[in-house]
Amino acid sequence: MKALVLEEKGKLSLRDFDIPGDPGPRDVRIKTHTVGICGSDVHYYTHGKIGHFVVDAPMVLGHEASGTVLEVGADVTHLKPGDRVCMEPGIPDPTSRAAKLGIYNVDPAVSFWATPPVHGCLTPEVIHPAAFTYKLPDAVSFAEGAMVEPFAIGMQAALRARIQPGDIAVVVGAGPIGMMVALAALAGGCARVIVGDLAQPKLDIISRYDGIEVVNIRQTPLAEAVASATDGWGCDVVFECSGAAPAILGMHTLARPGGAIVLVGMPVDPVPVDIVGLQAKELRVETVFRYANVYDRAIALMGSGKVDLTPLISATIPFADSIAAFDRAVEARDTDVKLQIAMPE
Amino acid sequence: MKALVLEEKGKLSLRDFDIPGDPGPRDVRIKTHTVGICGSDVHYYTHGKIGHFVVDAPMVLGHEASGTVLEVGADVTHLKPGDRVCMEPGIPDPTSRAAKLGIYNVDPAVSFWATPPVHGCLTPEVIHPAAFTYKLPDAVSFAEGAMVEPFAIGMQAALRARIQPGDIAVVVGAGPIGMMVALAALAGGCARVIVGDLAQPKLDIISRYDGIEVVNIRQTPLAEAVASATDGWGCDVVFECSGAAPAILGMHTLARPGGAIVLVGMPVDPVPVDIVGLQAKELRVETVFRYANVYDRAIALMGSGKVDLTPLISATIPFADSIAAFDRAVEARDTDVKLQIAMPE
Amino acid sequence: MKALVLEEKGKLSLRDFDIPGDPGPRDVRIKTHTVGICGSDVHYYTHGKIGHFVVDAPMVLGHEASGTVLEVGADVTHLKPGDRVCMEPGIPDPTSRAAKLGIYNVDPAVSFWATPPVHGCLTPEVIHPAAFTYKLPDAVSFAEGAMVEPFAIGMQAALRARIQPGDIAVVVGAGPIGMMVALAALAGGCARVIVGDLAQPKLDIISRYDGIEVVNIRQTPLAEAVASATDGWGCDVVFECSGAAPAILGMHTLARPGGAIVLVGMPVDPVPVDIVGLQAKELRVETVFRYANVYDRAIALMGSGKVDLTPLISATIPFADSIAAFDRAVEARDTDVKLQIAMPE
Amino acid sequence: MKALVLEEKGKLSLRDFDIPGDPGPRDVRIKTHTVGICGSDVHYYTHGKIGHFVVDAPMVLGHEASGTVLEVGADVTHLKPGDRVCMEPGIPDPTSRAAKLGIYNVDPAVSFWATPPVHGCLTPEVIHPAAFTYKLPDAVSFAEGAMVEPFAIGMQAALRARIQPGDIAVVVGAGPIGMMVALAALAGGCARVIVGDLAQPKLDIISRYDGIEVVNIRQTPLAEAVASATDGWGCDVVFECSGAAPAILGMHTLARPGGAIVLVGMPVDPVPVDIVGLQAKELRVETVFRYANVYDRAIALMGSGKVDLTPLISATIPFADSIAAFDRAVEARDTDVKLQIAMPE
Repeated sequence: MKALVLEEKGKLSLRDFDIPGDPGPRDVRIKTHTVGICGSDVHYYTHGKIGHFVVDAPMVLGHEASGTVLEVGADVTHLKPGDRVCMEPGIPDPTSRAAKLGIYNVDPAVSFWATPPVHGCLTPEVIHPAAFTYKLPDAVSFAEGAMVEPFAIGMQAALRARIQPGDIAVVVGAGPIGMMVALAALAGGCARVIVGDLAQPKLDIISRYDGIEVVNIRQTPLAEAVASATDGWGCDVVFECSGAAPAILGMHTLARPGGAIVLVGMPVDPVPVDIVGLQAKELRVETVFRYANVYDRAIALMGSGKVDLTPLISATIPFADSIAAFDRAVEARDTDVKLQIAMPE
Repeated sequence: MKALVLEEKGKLSLRDFDIPGDPGPRDVRIKTHTVGICGSDVHYYTHGKIGHFVVDAPMVLGHEASGTVLEVGADVTHLKPGDRVCMEPGIPDPTSRAAKLGIYNVDPAVSFWATPPVHGCLTPEVIHPAAFTYKLPDAVSFAEGAMVEPFAIGMQAALRARIQPGDIAVVVGAGPIGMMVALAALAGGCARVIVGDLAQPKLDIISRYDGIEVVNIRQTPLAEAVASATDGWGCDVVFECSGAAPAILGMHTLARPGGAIVLVGMPVDPVPVDIVGLQAKELRVETVFRYANVYDRAIALMGSGKVDLTPLISATIPFADSIAAFDRAVEARDTDVKLQIAMPE
Repeated sequence: MKALVLEEKGKLSLRDFDIPGDPGPRDVRIKTHTVGICGSDVHYYTHGKIGHFVVDAPMVLGHEASGTVLEVGADVTHLKPGDRVCMEPGIPDPTSRAAKLGIYNVDPAVSFWATPPVHGCLTPEVIHPAAFTYKLPDAVSFAEGAMVEPFAIGMQAALRARIQPGDIAVVVGAGPIGMMVALAALAGGCARVIVGDLAQPKLDIISRYDGIEVVNIRQTPLAEAVASATDGWGCDVVFECSGAAPAILGMHTLARPGGAIVLVGMPVDPVPVDIVGLQAKELRVETVFRYANVYDRAIALMGSGKVDLTPLISATIPFADSIAAFDRAVEARDTDVKLQIAMPE
Repeated sequence: MKALVLEEKGKLSLRDFDIPGDPGPRDVRIKTHTVGICGSDVHYYTHGKIGHFVVDAPMVLGHEASGTVLEVGADVTHLKPGDRVCMEPGIPDPTSRAAKLGIYNVDPAVSFWATPPVHGCLTPEVIHPAAFTYKLPDAVSFAEGAMVEPFAIGMQAALRARIQPGDIAVVVGAGPIGMMVALAALAGGCARVIVGDLAQPKLDIISRYDGIEVVNIRQTPLAEAVASATDGWGCDVVFECSGAAPAILGMHTLARPGGAIVLVGMPVDPVPVDIVGLQAKELRVETVFRYANVYDRAIALMGSGKVDLTPLISATIPFADSIAAFDRAVEARDTDVKLQIAMPE
């Protein structure tokens, strides 16, 4: 079976790769249909590592996937062959201390697709635990199904924020994750979501959604825009999605007294934080690490039509051209949000 | 100044009434524009009392109001003459124990419009504390401004539920408050809201909103509809808005394990509850008493276009005809959701 | 191997019983040391069923146990032979929807010791999943280790209450579970815990703990005692542990505005609840079903000396006399809190 | 009337000062009995300012006070002359947006004793709003009553932490506030509290309390001590009370996955934070600004005997010697926790 393999930093091959074995009693075998390209896939390609995760052996890329169930294990009851599904790429030890608490995303034992040494899903067939495989309703296409994974990060951010109905939020940074966060926050109860970025093309894309207001921070300081939008009170929730040091230093100025900040962006090194600034408004700061228990919520929002992610799919590229797709992703065009790979029929 | 006065049970007059005095330093004087008729106004008219609140002296009715600021007290800074506003009708002792905790709605000292012996606002001018008077954005009409009060109950229910983004909710009872709850829950983060009632005309009205699914419980038991909609798991949140004993007895069957029930409907007498049924799913049961700190949230949702209540305004009737308006409200037509009174220009 | 077997309603035997097989890779084999007698064990003995759980085949009783690890499965890393342990008796499907959420106690697939058709632990050796087996610190005796299970219910109630430091709580009903709840609430952050009951001997036992105040409700209505203890404000948390209809009908009168009620007692049939009474104070009502994720918390409180349950162990009876021990438990003496069975050396 | 006046940076006088006028209808007049010296009083003395609060006119110091009610305003019902009381020093605008939400501590309009330009309470009589004056139970002495204010900060930290019964906490820094936090966390539900500091004399004082474990971080790295105490899992709650940059940079290493950090210490300038370190465990970070709604909780814990702060009162100095008392406080002896001033009889 063919797979898109990262041989080493900077070198991709589309080549034969050992296929997975038989599904265990609680697993399913899935024919992949669509796989999205994530910034982390690209980063492994260009840098060969993320933090202490280093690619030191060939690894199949890809972790944003939808597909069709081919075969189910003996103990699987909620899925059957033919079901259209999407897959949660991180599998915890289900009886670890973290998993028992319901926070399986922070289980140190998690095995996650396309995170060394675990292979990803850019291959025509995968075996996956049924408990982390989710049925797609008819209203959700395969392309949308492959968007559930990145949207799940936005959902996790929205959950950690503990949004209250009618909150006003600001999202700092309009990259793909910032956009997912903005849409999750809006669908998740915010009355208004203000998105700030330097790149006008990105702002133009996200501003097409009702309820999203955009601020080009080259023209207007975000703190000023927020103050103006909230009569000087500040936002209930600040989603920091830029990872940029100056944004992090000033993030408290965007929040209302007693508000919340959710740290989504990941600055590589420690950055200065104005702790007294946070304290003076007694802000709560939440952090996000992947997601747990959000796939069904994400699918419900997409299935009911409250969230439409199709405008964020910039291009769909055949599996045969997936190396070219990755090279386009490396370019990081301002007008690309999500590139997807169409797996062979 | 004219006012709509409930002289005694069953007897309304539109007659001269003493106008309020001068505003204090933290008050505003407001010209009323639109006043909605609430079920409680009608109940005082038909029964002369609600619980231990008894009308034993003539009382001006009305507590759902919008208007224009005419004059502000010396210490008022956030409002000025000419501002379009709506008014929160319950005023607590701001330094009471409950108010200090932020739950001023349960302060026993609250004074509430049109709750004996406090006069309401069905009169051309009122004096009100500035802290409980809220500016309307341009996008919110006076008619919508007078809907903020009933919608605030829906908002309080949505807040108490602690909706998580992507929740699936069911609303039992499609009266005016059930509709408000459904819309607040949907805007407040639910992916889907199922509304059950016996009266098809009410279901027809609320089903016009995207994201609302309706169940005529004469045709399909609600528990069956919920099970079918949730693959047998149950709803994350059950909003009990009927106050009906059979609905309350079975409410746990609608909820998922670990879900929540919000009791909005008010059964006059104690009713049987299946406590072991609640325990077996470890449900959380929240209750609602009016609202606190929701007016700005409600206005934000209406101002951003996420919530449109105008389809629920069934008729607008001139102040001169307000007794007829009340008589129509007593009829309780299935097709009427909210009747509003247009105050004199 | 001998076991205490409930042959059928009313008939116990201490007889040979098939021993368990080999532990799986994630299991441990444990030599039981002490097993407490729970009200549910007694109820199966006297009634042959609890709700829809019916004893229709011989079943080993017992689910409150401590012991020593004899053997561990190949994948077990946190335990080794010789470890002193206690065991959580309910085992969920670890990848069920409820378990993934961290609320494994409400997983419908839970298998629970001494709940038909699952055998209990009143036998010298048991096999148990390592993930639900907890190491006891040196400071916690085997006798105390066998108290972790009933105390866990108190802990679950305290957790569901969301106690805030300095809360004042009232516990209605001073049975064994009421006592556990009172001690968990006190250790869990309450400044004061008021316990009300009719039976003076029970009150005498629990009143020996500092911080516990008792009210004999034959002499003083509990609402009056609470009002007097809280300057008329009411308790922050009401733990309903009686299951008695009159207590449930009046429970809202014990709570402060915005307070919480935790329903621990289990009335067999639906009972009348004053919903408007709950709403007028906007109370939150929580329910409790067994427990999840509390064993390590309970052990930490016992190990640090904050909670001492040994005064509640009324008698320790040899395994050989365990039928007599059950007959004493059936008597339900007011001075017995917990009877324990010492397993053979 | 005499008062301890900070004339300017470095210059204190005990001199006549204008007495307050008459109490308003909701105020009380209080004869002060005991006033504690806070680090902020000392800092104004030595530096003339804290952040942007600058002493540019003579100001009476002191904000930790107990006393006796002399006179009550016409509308005051919960206090009467002769009542023993303590006073909350920060007074918000009770109808501000923050105060309506219950978070009056972050109301920008708060007026706080001994924070320029507001005079403090180191004077024999003060006028204070009744709503912020709390009756002391018989079991709480005046000396303890004057400890409620610093303990309130510990309580606020414990509340913000959302301690769950049986949590294990670590407090970084054993200054007076660190000690208050440790005791509030322990009384507030923690099973164990580990306190780390460099200064052995401070550790010796706090280690006298049952349930507190101390770590001299000159001898053992705190992360190592925490790992050892928690089997490598980490603490549920980390209270950062040092304000020291290295402690803040490493604080995530002390927490368990999904745990919480409460930032109590106030570093003057922005300090580096390892945001990815926080994210990898998905930690929640809370901040503390003074306190709101904790006085009655603090008094309840002291009145019930759960918290005894008298061992932390290092010396009681007569008002006549209060300048010497401040000079002793400037010395910052490792063995002094709290110095108190006894006001004239």
